[in-house]
Amino acid sequence: MAKVTIIGAGAMGSALIVPLADNGHEVRLWGTELDGEIIDSLRKGLPHPKHKHRLPSEIATYQVTELEEAMLDTELVIMAITSDALENVFDKVVPFLKEGVIVGSVSKGFNYDQNGRIVILPEILENTLPETLRNKVPIVVVGGPCKAIEVVWKSPTAVTYSSNNVEAAKYMQSILMTDVYRVEVTDDVIGTEVCAAMKNAYSVGLGMAEGFKAKNGFLHNNTKAALFTFAVAEMGILTKAMGGSLEAVIGLPGVGDLEVTGEAGRNRTLGELIGGGLTASKAVEKMREEGITVEGYPAIKFGYYLAKQLESEEKLSLDQLPLLRGLYSILYENAPAYGKIKELLQNCTGYYKI
Amino acid sequence: MAKVTIIGAGAMGSALIVPLADNGHEVRLWGTELDGEIIDSLRKGLPHPKHKHRLPSEIATYQVTELEEAMLDTELVIMAITSDALENVFDKVVPFLKEGVIVGSVSKGFNYDQNGRIVILPEILENTLPETLRNKVPIVVVGGPCKAIEVVWKSPTAVTYSSNNVEAAKYMQSILMTDVYRVEVTDDVIGTEVCAAMKNAYSVGLGMAEGFKAKNGFLHNNTKAALFTFAVAEMGILTKAMGGSLEAVIGLPGVGDLEVTGEAGRNRTLGELIGGGLTASKAVEKMREEGITVEGYPAIKFGYYLAKQLESEEKLSLDQLPLLRGLYSILYENAPAYGKIKELLQNCTGYYKI
Repeated sequence: MAKVTIIGAGAMGSALIVPLADNGHEVRLWGTELDGEIIDSLRKGLPHPKHKHRLPSEIATYQVTELEEAMLDTELVIMAITSDALENVFDKVVPFLKEGVIVGSVSKGFNYDQNGRIVILPEILENTLPETLRNKVPIVVVGGPCKAIEVVWKSPTAVTYSSNNVEAAKYMQSILMTDVYRVEVTDDVIGTEVCAAMKNAYSVGLGMAEGFKAKNGFLHNNTKAALFTFAVAEMGILTKAMGGSLEAVIGLPGVGDLEVTGEAGRNRTLGELIGGGLTASKAVEKMREEGITVEGYPAIKFGYYLAKQLESEEKLSLDQLPLLRGLYSILYENAPAYGKIKELLQNCTGYYKI
Repeated sequence: MAKVTIIGAGAMGSALIVPLADNGHEVRLWGTELDGEIIDSLRKGLPHPKHKHRLPSEIATYQVTELEEAMLDTELVIMAITSDALENVFDKVVPFLKEGVIVGSVSKGFNYDQNGRIVILPEILENTLPETLRNKVPIVVVGGPCKAIEVVWKSPTAVTYSSNNVEAAKYMQSILMTDVYRVEVTDDVIGTEVCAAMKNAYSVGLGMAEGFKAKNGFLHNNTKAALFTFAVAEMGILTKAMGGSLEAVIGLPGVGDLEVTGEAGRNRTLGELIGGGLTASKAVEKMREEGITVEGYPAIKFGYYLAKQLESEEKLSLDQLPLLRGLYSILYENAPAYGKIKELLQNCTGYYKI
């Protein structure tokens, strides 16, 4: 039985309690300053306010002020924090980390490092560690198609854990894998992370194809499937330019996660609103008013600037990424979605040279 | 302006009239003996009975007895026949073929050659040609995500034309491509064909994941996305064993066509019935009673026997294809769908080694 601390009581962090509890581990769930009400609810035995489901009752819950207790003698820490808050929260966790503790991360996205370069999130974590812990606290990232609520329901799920330290990833696999939560292990951190971030960006595009029905009065499944293919090709180009492998792209972190994100979720909804005729700025505003943050929106901007960064390093050319450029132009320059998608369909290629 | 003869007045054959007419070509639509009523309807100016849409009125229509007229001086013949009838119908077309006429094929699937080996459809066409026309009538096959009705509606669509004779594929592209019907050209006939056939098989599995909601009371999007990934991996293994390229698999013919087939259609519906709790034999019977043929059903059998054939030739091992084996077992041995899928999820790999 391992001691596992989950940092962040949102949808995904809380969902992972289910396989952990099924495997009989001691689980501590720590809530950030934004999670106070969630922790209160769970302590009262009420359902999780996001899942609307009761979680296994044997877990221990910790409020924002109780981090030290939550971290006591822990063997595995799982960071389940939104990408923009990850660094700040990890900063608070670090003083309680010891050599050999493993840090898993389910956060997905990009961020800027101290030099203003766009990097993947494990680099942010690595940079936050003090010198004394560098390379002594292995970091494991999670990719693949995984709606949190379905982990709670126990829909059969398959995900990828990736780490430069494969043994650490295998350890985390041994702690979490169940007969309905399959974990594959790879050493391709970059591939897993680039796909995890970019699938949010591209699924906004898939949502647009769904939205064209409202605009034009008929289905655009062919368009969606074409965009899906172009997205896979462009994720391949970005991943390889970053130093990741194509295996991640055609595996669970790429193709798999793009499929599930294109089926349902916030990114798709944002795209659907835009495809249906709302301007991008109105659509983003509408979702913000409803309190919904859409990861795909910043991911498109990060992806586009990352591509520029990679172009300046002569690792790719923006011309290879017509879909990403088109999405940027629709989301940030208010280009009309239907016209843009129709136009870029002529310039994309669905036959990606390996 | 080219003279183009479409053989078969079903959904896909008729749909291609739209880009052809948009490009100003002379189109002749010939109906098989099963298409008599369709041709009658079109001649009366009524909508196509399958699409429920009016087709461009300037096309010429031909009944089964008028094949010679339909073929007169034609430059491009497009075979739009179900895979099981393709050979018989092509046999009738062959006497009217001349050297240099190009034969396109939108039929998808496998069949047996004279020696009882499972082969891709262009081989069937090639073998049907008399010696005098071998290699003188280039064959071009069509792959990629393309619901026929959406070609009629002009939803932006992207497809792949493949031929050993790339010039012929480019010619066909020049005849059909429009601003909403994009055509990419490749020389990978095998990759395009294996994906075109196998995506029908695997999308039955995707449908099962949709059906599990009816059975279990909650969504299985994670399961569907995992199966999607495993399907892509297995299409890669089959395609490479057949001599095709991975580019087709991660391109429009593979990933793209699997995506659209998993979104909607007969194959998915069959899977959904089975996932929802019907035995496979009852589900197939139910669809047959409604007059619906499901290409995925024979495709699973063909795929499984093709894999055995390739195993006996030491080109792959059946152990590499747990999803295909599982689907065969559900469809042809009445294995329980949910249990089987849950089990095979433990044995599949979503990290296909390139």
